[in-house]
Amino acid sequence: MRRTSFFMPTLRETPKEAEIVSHRLMLRAGMIRQASAGIYSWLPLGYRVLKRIEQIVREEQDLAGCQEVLMPTIQSADLWKQSGRYDDYGKEMLRIEDRHGREMLYGPTNEELITEIFKASQRSYRDLPKLLYHIQWKFRDEVRPRFGIMRGREFLMKDAYSFDLDFDGARRSYNKMFVAYLRTFARMGLKAIPMEADTGPIGGDLSHEFVILADTGETAVYCHGDLLERDVLAAGVDYDSDLMPIVESWTKAYARTDDKHDPEAFAAEVPADRQVERRGIEVGHIFYFGTKYSKPLEALVTDADDAQHAVHMGSYGVGVSRLVGGIIEASHDEDGIIWPDSVAPFAVGLINLRAGDEACTRVCDELYAKLRAAGVAVLYDDRDESPGAKFAETDLIGLPWQIIVGPRGVKAGKVELKRRATGEREELDGAAALDRVAG
Amino acid sequence: MRRTSFFMPTLRETPKEAEIVSHRLMLRAGMIRQASAGIYSWLPLGYRVLKRIEQIVREEQDLAGCQEVLMPTIQSADLWKQSGRYDDYGKEMLRIEDRHGREMLYGPTNEELITEIFKASQRSYRDLPKLLYHIQWKFRDEVRPRFGIMRGREFLMKDAYSFDLDFDGARRSYNKMFVAYLRTFARMGLKAIPMEADTGPIGGDLSHEFVILADTGETAVYCHGDLLERDVLAAGVDYDSDLMPIVESWTKAYARTDDKHDPEAFAAEVPADRQVERRGIEVGHIFYFGTKYSKPLEALVTDADDAQHAVHMGSYGVGVSRLVGGIIEASHDEDGIIWPDSVAPFAVGLINLRAGDEACTRVCDELYAKLRAAGVAVLYDDRDESPGAKFAETDLIGLPWQIIVGPRGVKAGKVELKRRATGEREELDGAAALDRVAG
Repeated sequence: MRRTSFFMPTLRETPKEAEIVSHRLMLRAGMIRQASAGIYSWLPLGYRVLKRIEQIVREEQDLAGCQEVLMPTIQSADLWKQSGRYDDYGKEMLRIEDRHGREMLYGPTNEELITEIFKASQRSYRDLPKLLYHIQWKFRDEVRPRFGIMRGREFLMKDAYSFDLDFDGARRSYNKMFVAYLRTFARMGLKAIPMEADTGPIGGDLSHEFVILADTGETAVYCHGDLLERDVLAAGVDYDSDLMPIVESWTKAYARTDDKHDPEAFAAEVPADRQVERRGIEVGHIFYFGTKYSKPLEALVTDADDAQHAVHMGSYGVGVSRLVGGIIEASHDEDGIIWPDSVAPFAVGLINLRAGDEACTRVCDELYAKLRAAGVAVLYDDRDESPGAKFAETDLIGLPWQIIVGPRGVKAGKVELKRRATGEREELDGAAALDRVAG
Repeated sequence: MRRTSFFMPTLRETPKEAEIVSHRLMLRAGMIRQASAGIYSWLPLGYRVLKRIEQIVREEQDLAGCQEVLMPTIQSADLWKQSGRYDDYGKEMLRIEDRHGREMLYGPTNEELITEIFKASQRSYRDLPKLLYHIQWKFRDEVRPRFGIMRGREFLMKDAYSFDLDFDGARRSYNKMFVAYLRTFARMGLKAIPMEADTGPIGGDLSHEFVILADTGETAVYCHGDLLERDVLAAGVDYDSDLMPIVESWTKAYARTDDKHDPEAFAAEVPADRQVERRGIEVGHIFYFGTKYSKPLEALVTDADDAQHAVHMGSYGVGVSRLVGGIIEASHDEDGIIWPDSVAPFAVGLINLRAGDEACTRVCDELYAKLRAAGVAVLYDDRDESPGAKFAETDLIGLPWQIIVGPRGVKAGKVELKRRATGEREELDGAAALDRVAG
């Protein structure tokens, strides 16, 4: 993409309304624009990141045997009355009346609807287990939306639902999602720690939230240092095997947020030199809630002896749009965003330091064509701007690699390659630079 | 995907509420399920098709130089009051009041919001042209929703918007979208014909609707036979070139729907042996509407002489979810759906005729592994059902290829390969079958 045609309305000044760094940087980088309170439009740079995050979530759900569906945003109030949550949910639920006066709502979550879908066709233990997920926009009418897309009203969430005959089956499904979440966040370059959690309005007996570490995070986190040293992806996973040992290895070590922190237990369970205090952001939450919805909604399955049971369920959420902000909170410096390679909107920023210069432009055009031919996503800054303005903007938007082409280098047959995360720079010829960023 | 674990709740009986063939087949094949009137959940089989259609639309928009954004579903009423459409839209607009009593709405289209986004940063002719699109769920509160997802209330639409300094620029953008639409529908295996159209509530001076041919279509179509014989994709396209000759070659020939049909002009303009009367379905609509929104919303750009002009705009819609039904209307027989390869939910249905037989299962398992390794999407019917039930279901769901493995064939080292569209069958060895479906 050429910068001259790319729609990326960056801002020079830091918008006053933005209280946290991710909100400031997303507005400054032209990733989002507020449409109304707590509701955002995603501009091309931001949307590219959102799609990449969504795709990682999708791939890991698929790998864990979860099947993708899509439920609508607008639901009838009827099911929510049946489950008893219509009144419980309060003003956070956006209630709507359609032209015929029917009570509708903008789904804040989907336990009721997925249970209804399940029960319409699945009636036997032979149909189980089933794991279904969707990635869909939700609405929660927060009284005071803030922090940009981190706590917006309309937000993109992946929610999965498991259906099993009994607790043992449900536990296996729970463990699959537990491991899938570890992998999902690791692929985004995040350190995510599962923490025992309250079950809140979803209800249930067993629940973990996944908290990513970020110095500017919303909550304090206390955990055993071992949890930060694991290489989740290198370990691989076989979802057909017993995952309990993996889950236990994560849950037996101390890991709690502020509201559940117990200083005495922390001191007793974790050696002083392994005690870690950091800050974090919740980006995922998993629940086992048994028959809480299947009973009132009468989602019954027969076992091998033809006896009927309410199906055992769990639900599993990832804040997909929230993660865009979460990753920025976890990965930025004073100059701007530092995207992990796996979610970067472009892998490379190609900077022509002198857009009017024929030799520079020729080298840039060639590199641009070669990068595209190699399938490398590249943003080519071909504008007639000062080098300083180009450097500042490329740092701000956080592309992992910068290839800088200037008159001096071109004479010597060299370009400069900069790694955004470390600031390391080296001079090399164009072909070598191409190899490095494509490798 | 193994059929035993795939969530595809097919129906044996034809649902009574379904009036048209695509609605009937989508329900029977377990592609969708009604959530409430005119609102559907997409089950895995249906969602796979929807995603493939969406991806073709996206690729062709990108190719034409259109950049993807995502605007929210919920909009503030303010902009609509400014444009004057808040009152015009009537009861089809789903109006919502949030917890603070602010007037909101579920976007039925996005001219206002995209104009607001544009004007916040783009102020000069140097920023032009700009083509922005998004693929987002819309809501129109139809008084009597019917025909399944063909005329639902919540539906997925691609809407693009162009911004240019003057009519000439806008016409170039319009032509790009015109050609992009021809390519988009052709890639889905459809015969799409652009037809001069009324501009309706969007307003404007220049407008075409794209109608696909389907015997069960909603409207009569009258056109010159030449229009049906063109190979749009083979012709290729250079979006930097002048596209007017391509557009004119399509628009000069007679092509009208029912409401615009003029029998005398038809007789005069088209030789009798080239007169085609068919039925069709509208799946796309493009508009040039000049400054209709940019004037009231004050989206101004300066020209090279620093004079200000309201920006010239167009909008360009494709009914993405509607296309799922449209393709079925255009491509089915009495046994079920016939998916074009480009949008099929799986390329291959692999049928084990005797699930209990060791030799059959071994051959199937091997083929299944090889197909997956080759990146071929395959649905493996490993159920313990009768051959008849398996044949009927595989025909119903319309996968382009069927590989049928039975005891007799296995003894002879053969499998049967069936092409769904033609019914052609041949016996060949497994490796040859694999080559055919992967090729």
